[in-house]
Amino acid sequence: MTHSLQQTVCLLARTPGTLNALLRDLPDEWTQRNEGEGTWSACDIVAHLIHAERTDWMVRVNALLQFGPAHTFAAFDRTGHARDGQERPLGHLLNEFAQVRSENLRELHALNLQPDDLGRQARHPAFGPVTLSQLLATWAAHDLTHLHQISRVMAYQYRDAVGPWEKYLGVLHCNGHG
Amino acid sequence: MTHSLQQTVCLLARTPGTLNALLRDLPDEWTQRNEGEGTWSACDIVAHLIHAERTDWMVRVNALLQFGPAHTFAAFDRTGHARDGQERPLGHLLNEFAQVRSENLRELHALNLQPDDLGRQARHPAFGPVTLSQLLATWAAHDLTHLHQISRVMAYQYRDAVGPWEKYLGVLHCNGHG
Repeated sequence: MTHSLQQTVCLLARTPGTLNALLRDLPDEWTQRNEGEGTWSACDIVAHLIHAERTDWMVRVNALLQFGPAHTFAAFDRTGHARDGQERPLGHLLNEFAQVRSENLRELHALNLQPDDLGRQARHPAFGPVTLSQLLATWAAHDLTHLHQISRVMAYQYRDAVGPWEKYLGVLHCNGHG
Repeated sequence: MTHSLQQTVCLLARTPGTLNALLRDLPDEWTQRNEGEGTWSACDIVAHLIHAERTDWMVRVNALLQFGPAHTFAAFDRTGHARDGQERPLGHLLNEFAQVRSENLRELHALNLQPDDLGRQARHPAFGPVTLSQLLATWAAHDLTHLHQISRVMAYQYRDAVGPWEKYLGVLHCNGHG
């Protein structure tokens, strides 16, 4: 499956509603617990997604279009959310994520990107030349990697409760993949 | 986190809405594709969840309560959905999953389970004695293992589209854990 801007936008538009349906008003035992010291809870992950909306995806799209192939993206701070979202209730975080995602998708739509634009390039600070198409596909796949993580972090809370069924539940054998 | 009937029901009640928000009306490229021969698409996974609602969870709960510790559960056919759901549109499957889950949660509520009931036992065909508490916790964790799987199957469709970002996206390094 090659990258399609339309398919990417379809997925990006659904993530706030997905997280809202899964997480809003769940007991804190599901949403505030993590997988051990230095790991993230579902609540931390939503804060991280907000931080990426504000500082990463559209910032990089705009920089790529404005400055072109010689431009190197600023590094993204994967733990930046710990400074700007940690103390807020999950319901507020879900609202904010929905709002900033919606704003970013409106901004993306207003760019009126054409097929030729998707091949335009800039430089990633770690691995060099990347295309706009790869950046947009990664935005969508990043949502999925964190949905994958949230389901794992939540299942981890029941790792003992399931008893011998533990061996049949793949999510309990996921190591997070670094 | 020990098992809590209330927390289990909270999660079980949310899964149909979560899958609806994530999947309904998404392009088929996201929902009908799998990870290769013999693997499941998001659509297959919803059909599997319906099959488990109809033939596994509440059937086992009722058998445990009715027949007690000497009773061995009938084996669950993990591929049974291939016979009863494969040909139907995803929108129909999402509707059916919401309906059967809702019916099962009403039936569970009507049992008016007490704390002492959660320790009651029956036998699993593969690993012997299990408690009602473990069975109910597994019902919830099974939802999460399939949400984990759906996010992985969908992300797999963009494994090439993300280019060099592939190395940063944990979901693309998940092997499904058997």
